Amino acid sequence: MSAVSLNARFLRIKSNRIFETFIIAIIIFSALIVGAKTYDISPSIAKAVAILDWLVTVIFIVEIIIRFLAEENKKRFFHSAWNIFDTVIVLVSVIPIDNSDMALIGRLIRIFRVLRMISIIPELRMLITSLIKALPQLGYVMLLMFIIYYIYAAVGATFFGEINPTLWGDVSISMLTLFRVMTFEDWTDVMYETMDVYTLSWTYFLSFIFFTAFAFLNMVIGIVVNVMEKEHQTLVEEGLSKESEELAAIRIELAEIKSLLQKN
Amino acid sequence: MSAVSLNARFLRIKSNRIFETFIIAIIIFSALIVGAKTYDISPSIAKAVAILDWLVTVIFIVEIIIRFLAEENKKRFFHSAWNIFDTVIVLVSVIPIDNSDMALIGRLIRIFRVLRMISIIPELRMLITSLIKALPQLGYVMLLMFIIYYIYAAVGATFFGEINPTLWGDVSISMLTLFRVMTFEDWTDVMYETMDVYTLSWTYFLSFIFFTAFAFLNMVIGIVVNVMEKEHQTLVEEGLSKESEELAAIRIELAEIKSLLQKN
Amino acid sequence: MSAVSLNARFLRIKSNRIFETFIIAIIIFSALIVGAKTYDISPSIAKAVAILDWLVTVIFIVEIIIRFLAEENKKRFFHSAWNIFDTVIVLVSVIPIDNSDMALIGRLIRIFRVLRMISIIPELRMLITSLIKALPQLGYVMLLMFIIYYIYAAVGATFFGEINPTLWGDVSISMLTLFRVMTFEDWTDVMYETMDVYTLSWTYFLSFIFFTAFAFLNMVIGIVVNVMEKEHQTLVEEGLSKESEELAAIRIELAEIKSLLQKN
Amino acid sequence: MSAVSLNARFLRIKSNRIFETFIIAIIIFSALIVGAKTYDISPSIAKAVAILDWLVTVIFIVEIIIRFLAEENKKRFFHSAWNIFDTVIVLVSVIPIDNSDMALIGRLIRIFRVLRMISIIPELRMLITSLIKALPQLGYVMLLMFIIYYIYAAVGATFFGEINPTLWGDVSISMLTLFRVMTFEDWTDVMYETMDVYTLSWTYFLSFIFFTAFAFLNMVIGIVVNVMEKEHQTLVEEGLSKESEELAAIRIELAEIKSLLQKN
Repeated sequence: MSAVSLNARFLRIKSNRIFETFIIAIIIFSALIVGAKTYDISPSIAKAVAILDWLVTVIFIVEIIIRFLAEENKKRFFHSAWNIFDTVIVLVSVIPIDNSDMALIGRLIRIFRVLRMISIIPELRMLITSLIKALPQLGYVMLLMFIIYYIYAAVGATFFGEINPTLWGDVSISMLTLFRVMTFEDWTDVMYETMDVYTLSWTYFLSFIFFTAFAFLNMVIGIVVNVMEKEHQTLVEEGLSKESEELAAIRIELAEIKSLLQKN
Repeated sequence: MSAVSLNARFLRIKSNRIFETFIIAIIIFSALIVGAKTYDISPSIAKAVAILDWLVTVIFIVEIIIRFLAEENKKRFFHSAWNIFDTVIVLVSVIPIDNSDMALIGRLIRIFRVLRMISIIPELRMLITSLIKALPQLGYVMLLMFIIYYIYAAVGATFFGEINPTLWGDVSISMLTLFRVMTFEDWTDVMYETMDVYTLSWTYFLSFIFFTAFAFLNMVIGIVVNVMEKEHQTLVEEGLSKESEELAAIRIELAEIKSLLQKN
Repeated sequence: MSAVSLNARFLRIKSNRIFETFIIAIIIFSALIVGAKTYDISPSIAKAVAILDWLVTVIFIVEIIIRFLAEENKKRFFHSAWNIFDTVIVLVSVIPIDNSDMALIGRLIRIFRVLRMISIIPELRMLITSLIKALPQLGYVMLLMFIIYYIYAAVGATFFGEINPTLWGDVSISMLTLFRVMTFEDWTDVMYETMDVYTLSWTYFLSFIFFTAFAFLNMVIGIVVNVMEKEHQTLVEEGLSKESEELAAIRIELAEIKSLLQKN
Repeated sequence: MSAVSLNARFLRIKSNRIFETFIIAIIIFSALIVGAKTYDISPSIAKAVAILDWLVTVIFIVEIIIRFLAEENKKRFFHSAWNIFDTVIVLVSVIPIDNSDMALIGRLIRIFRVLRMISIIPELRMLITSLIKALPQLGYVMLLMFIIYYIYAAVGATFFGEINPTLWGDVSISMLTLFRVMTFEDWTDVMYETMDVYTLSWTYFLSFIFFTAFAFLNMVIGIVVNVMEKEHQTLVEEGLSKESEELAAIRIELAEIKSLLQKN
């Protein structure tokens, strides 16, 4: 059998609806196994689960191989970020981890196989792609927010560090405390504690909340406006192009009339 | 009296404004009864309330029968989801529940009669219909969010299960805890507890908050954009169609001028 | 001096910039007095504040009288809701309250004089007017939300009433507790308490949060879309009307050309 | 060497990519120093950090001088708010603070040098400029919100002042407590405490939450609508101007045809 026909055969398998549904079923099944392991289960069931786990791994490897062989240009297979994503997730879960200290890491890796759900369903893949595309636009707002956090954290660590080292020990701990303040989680307890020493420290907290809320709001509005602009532009352009065509047709007619008149 | 004239008579009753207002009044009255039962009331008043309750049930049954008889095509009555909704709610509240253990269920069913308020007021019916229509659009974002929750819950149950079984005992308990974290309800207490064992566990919580907030934001923006797109499209199309008509009229004029010129 | 010229004189006073600035200054001053009274002040200062308070009242009465006399048509004065608002606030603060039990009410009334700030600044008046205009649009969403609250409160009072009467004693207390749950304020404490008796009660809380969040979101989107629609419509209509004029001009030209051709 | 050529030389240095990258690196380095000081460091490292700190100050002074000398018109240098901002931040950190009481202030000033990050990156500068531009639009909504806060704080201090002086002692403390209520931080604890004395005090809290939430919502919508309006207007205008050109061209053609006909 020639290489080409083999390739075609694998392509047929890969494109098969039943094959795809089967793989989705296996991913869901592997997700259920991951969930089952978090419950208290008897050793015999645990053994069965471990066997099923390896079975899933084998199926995943076979699937990746089929998809790789189905690709005519082998290099192009690794041009798709999703293919690399799938391959890495499957390959990593094959690595044998005997050391008991690493057992948790081993379980962690198996959990990430659930992420294959995203790579196999096109709509979820599109959602993730659009989220990633939106990130760079937010880059500078995030940098600005980081600067605000850093300055407030440095001020907080300098002034409140001795009042409560657990919350304001150093810059990094202070940043975590400030994130807590931004989520309004018991932020008044944090504030009242510092107000016993510095009575004006409420200005620190209120200004921080205003700045971050304002920056966050700005960020959200930025995304909304951006998304709507794009949708809107296509809509308006469609309408305008239709009109431009009409206008162009009218001008052609006018040119014809003119030439008729000039002939007379 | 012929069947047709009977049908017409019921239709007349059903369409009667007084009849409709009376039914709305009865629904409000049944809602008040439901509320009254939650207060400590003397046995004699409780008896009166129970009698009124049955009276309401009887009125509801009569109303449903009238509406059913008013329908010319009896099959079409059950094509409306709202008719089925009303019938089920009324019928279920008729089932006699003697067993004292089931008394709570019996009271629960009576509470749901308040929902008839939605089915009888057209504007509320429209609101619910539009909410249901918006759901499928959100389907994939919700699936994505569920996957994020599931993975984080599995990771949480694996690592933090032994630290605090009440919060991280298994996947389902962990998902509830993560929902709590997303609502920022005492989430720092949950986090600090795990940070005593795994000092880097703050990355777990912060990344979870970022992912879910981002996905949620995306969802909200999706709905806003969708709703505005539709409103906007109709507006633009109306404007454009008016213009297209004008342009078409101009082209007809031009064609006439051309034919006049060609005749010359 | 004739009545007309008196009227004109009062109108001149009322329209005077200095008069207006003076009244705003008095309102701010009365607000400061209101604030000052909440601090611990010595009896002598308290006496001075009381005298200033009466002075402010006198100035307000004089101002209202001037504005009333400046109005040509005395009936039209009471057609403006803001005039009635001002008059009521000032008149009510004149009523002498001797009874010590009513002293708090007396102070309360003086606080509301700060609201005159809104009626005297046109931009704030516009803001309030636009807020009031937006209310009826929200009417049905609010009714829907009230029904959701009522049903959940009735269910809560029925099932959890015996677990914690302070939170779930009757329908009205339950509604307050549900509002607390909606603001995510220690809602897990409320939930965990009920989960000890009914393990599935988390479905009650989560579904409630989803329903209210969804309804609230819908409400917000409704307002945004509404506001933008109006702004947008005016913009598009302006653009279209400009174009329609151009198109109409073109058709007039065409008609002239046609008549010229038909003459030939 | 002539003054002009010196000026040109400094301009060349200032515009140099390497120079700019170097300054950004120094700012990041000074931010790291600021952060490092919040950790417990040995005296020898503290000494090294202090020396590095002074080195950074020197580099900043040299940079400001170069930028000042590079400016052809020396007066225009201080027309840019960002130049003044940079100069003030650098100059202030030069002031020697020997008094140990002022040591904290000295550290505070050094922290603000991190803000130079904003002035040196054009995109961040633009973000801040757009935020500042958005502020006046919000002015009246903020005034309205302040009035709401002030009235509620005065009412709160009057009625609840004796119940809990820590939260409702006077107007300013009450405003802080109300801000806490608006962030939903343990607001029910604050409310339940007052409900023991005034059973109807829940109306005070719920109405406050509704008013501020509504005003805040209005503010956000105002910004969104404003931003989108501008973006939208430019888009529509571009489309319309393109069409107007086409329509104008058609009218010119028509005029030519008419003149041709009139010649015949």
